[in-house]
Amino acid sequence: MTRPFNFSAGPAAIPEEVLTQAAAEMLDWHGSGMGVMEMSHRGKEFLSIYAQTKADFRALMAVPPEFKILFMQGGGLGENAIVPLNLSRGGKIDCVVTGSWSQKSQKEARKYAQVHIAASTEASGYTRLPDPASWDLSSDANYVHICSNETIDGIEFQTLPDLQALGSKAPLVVDFSSHVASRPVDWSKIGLAFGGAQKNLGPAGLTVVVVREDLLGHALDICPSAFNYETVADNQSMYNTPPTFAIYIAGLTFQWLKHQTEGDLHGIAAMEQRNIAKAELLYSAIDQSQLYFNKVDADCRSRMNVPFFLRDESRNDAFLEGAKARGLLQLKGHKSVGGMRASIYNAMPLAGVQALVDYMHAFEKSQA
Amino acid sequence: MTRPFNFSAGPAAIPEEVLTQAAAEMLDWHGSGMGVMEMSHRGKEFLSIYAQTKADFRALMAVPPEFKILFMQGGGLGENAIVPLNLSRGGKIDCVVTGSWSQKSQKEARKYAQVHIAASTEASGYTRLPDPASWDLSSDANYVHICSNETIDGIEFQTLPDLQALGSKAPLVVDFSSHVASRPVDWSKIGLAFGGAQKNLGPAGLTVVVVREDLLGHALDICPSAFNYETVADNQSMYNTPPTFAIYIAGLTFQWLKHQTEGDLHGIAAMEQRNIAKAELLYSAIDQSQLYFNKVDADCRSRMNVPFFLRDESRNDAFLEGAKARGLLQLKGHKSVGGMRASIYNAMPLAGVQALVDYMHAFEKSQA
Repeated sequence: MTRPFNFSAGPAAIPEEVLTQAAAEMLDWHGSGMGVMEMSHRGKEFLSIYAQTKADFRALMAVPPEFKILFMQGGGLGENAIVPLNLSRGGKIDCVVTGSWSQKSQKEARKYAQVHIAASTEASGYTRLPDPASWDLSSDANYVHICSNETIDGIEFQTLPDLQALGSKAPLVVDFSSHVASRPVDWSKIGLAFGGAQKNLGPAGLTVVVVREDLLGHALDICPSAFNYETVADNQSMYNTPPTFAIYIAGLTFQWLKHQTEGDLHGIAAMEQRNIAKAELLYSAIDQSQLYFNKVDADCRSRMNVPFFLRDESRNDAFLEGAKARGLLQLKGHKSVGGMRASIYNAMPLAGVQALVDYMHAFEKSQA
Repeated sequence: MTRPFNFSAGPAAIPEEVLTQAAAEMLDWHGSGMGVMEMSHRGKEFLSIYAQTKADFRALMAVPPEFKILFMQGGGLGENAIVPLNLSRGGKIDCVVTGSWSQKSQKEARKYAQVHIAASTEASGYTRLPDPASWDLSSDANYVHICSNETIDGIEFQTLPDLQALGSKAPLVVDFSSHVASRPVDWSKIGLAFGGAQKNLGPAGLTVVVVREDLLGHALDICPSAFNYETVADNQSMYNTPPTFAIYIAGLTFQWLKHQTEGDLHGIAAMEQRNIAKAELLYSAIDQSQLYFNKVDADCRSRMNVPFFLRDESRNDAFLEGAKARGLLQLKGHKSVGGMRASIYNAMPLAGVQALVDYMHAFEKSQA
C-alpha cells in the first residue's frame, strides 16, 4: 500500500524507512532486551545512540569543531527566550523581522535585552526579504537575530548575510528550524543556530542548538540551569534527562539522510538538489495557473514551505476535500495567513509534489 | 520470548502492551495514513489523542476540576526554575530538603526567590523524613516545596503534609516525578504537582504539571513565555509545539493503567496494592539477608526506588554481572550513592521483583 503524502508544516512527515526501523526495534534495540524509550540515558546503550547521532549530524551538516552540538527541549519558542538569556548579556541585540517567527522572537527577547529592529518587512506583509546592505546594524549589538526560513510566510534566505562585510562585529543567530538539513550551511557566517526537530530532523520535543564555543559562559544569572548552554554543553546534553526517543529518531533520520543520493551527490547536497527540483515543480505550477497564486518575491521563496491561495477562496474547502481523497494530507494554510500551504521537507519525495501538482491541475480544470 | 526485567530509575520500563501497540501504529494511526509523530499538533487526529490523554489522566488520578493539567518540556530540572518563575512572586518560599532532588530544587530556586530551608535531613545522610510538626514554616512563604519521592535516596512521603494544619497558608508544591501514578494523590493538600514522565508515565521529554487555577497569573516578567503556566494553560499546552509522540505514549500508558486490576481494585488503586506487595517482597528480602542492607528508616522507604548495598562492596561487579546474565537489567546504583538500586515502577510486574529476590538469595548463598 502506498502511504498518503503528508504536507504538514510540522510535526511533519518522517521517512518511511525510519518509522519502519523504529517499529521493528520498539521492544528490543539491538538485542539489548530494552526498547530505546526504556534505556537509562546514562547507560552504554543510549550513550552509543547519542554519540552516533551527534557525530552523524556534525558530519552531515559539516559543523566545524569549534561549534558545540546541543540536544535540548522547548522548541523554537523556548529558544526565543533561551537565546537572549544566554547571549544578550542584558544589553543590545539587533533583530531582522521577516515574518511571523522572527516577529515572535524579537517580542520575547525584549524581556531580557534591548531590542533594536535592524530591518523589517512587516509593512510589505512579509512577501520579500530586506536587502542586507540596508540593515541598520548597531555597533554594540551582542548578536543579530534572523529566521532563515519563515515557516508560516514561506520566505527563505537563499544566502546568509555576511555581518562582517556589513560592518557588524556581532555574531549571527539563526533560527533554521524549518529548513535545517535541507541545504548546506555556511558556518563561517554563524555564531549560533537553533532548530526544533519536528520539521526536518525528527519528532517534536527535541531542539538542536549549534553554538560556537566562544559564545558560551555569558548567560544571565536568571537563566534556568537546564537551559544554560554552557551547562548543557559541559554535561553532554545530559544535565537534565534528554528526550531520548526523539534523539534516537533524529539519529535514524540522519542515517537515512547519509544514504540519500542524486547523481554524484549524497547527503545534504543530494537533498538540496532534490529540494530545488521539488520547489521548482510546485512554484512553476502555481505561477502558470489562473487559479493559484503565491505572494512571495521569487528570489526569496522558501523551498520548504510553499503557501498558496485560490483566487476563488470559496473553493478552499472543496480543494482540501479533493486533496484528502487523493491521499494529499494537511494542506490547509496557517490560520494567520489562510489559503493553502504545502510543506515539502526532506521526507517528501518528488513523487509527492508531482501528485500535488497533478491534483492542482485537475482541480483547476474541473472549476473551469 | 520473555523480555528481561528492567530496573532502570528512568527512563524506565514501559508496559510491553504499550510498546507493542505503538509499534503497530507507527506508520498509520487508526487509518489516518500518518504515524503519530507525523501529525500536526493542531489537526483533529492529534487533538483527539491529546484530549483523551488529558481526560484519562484526570480520571485515573482523580484530579479535581479546579486543577489544570499541562503537558510541558524540560523535565524536573527544568521545573526547578519554572516553578519559582511562576509561583514565587520574587518573594519567600519554604523548602524541605530530604534528598538529592529537593536539594537541587532549593538551589535553583535561589535565582528567583528568597529560599528558607524549613527542614533538612542532609545531616542524617538522607535516611529519614523530618516530622512535619518540626518544620520551621514561614508566615509569608509563597509556597512550600517538597519532593514526595526521592529517586536517588529511596525516600517517600507516605502521607503528604497538611500545611493548613501546620499553620501555613502557603500552597504545597510537590515534585512527584518518580512515584506519580503509583498511588492515589490527596489533591486537597496540593497547590501544584509536577513530574517528568520518564519514570511512571512514558518517555523522557514530557513533563506533566498539575496546577490549581488560582495560582496561575503571577509569573515573574522574566519567565519565558513557553514556560509560563498561564500561557501554557490558555493554549491547551500548545503554545509551543508539544512533544506529541511522548504525549501519545503517555496516553497509551494511561489506557494500560485503566485496565489494571487487583481483586476488586482497578486503576491507580490496583497499582498501589501491587506496588505495596512488590516493595514488601524486596525490602523483606533485603532486611532478612546477611549480605544486603538498606539505610532508610522503615516508615519512609520508597515503594518505587529501592537502593541497597552489599556489605562486601568488592562483590558489586559480580552481583551486577550475574544479574544481567539472568535478564535483570540496570541495577547499578546512582553514582552519588553507589551500591545497587532497583526501581520498581508500575511497569515492573511482581514476577520481576520475585526474579530479583530469587537471584539475590542465590547470589548470597554462592558467596557463603
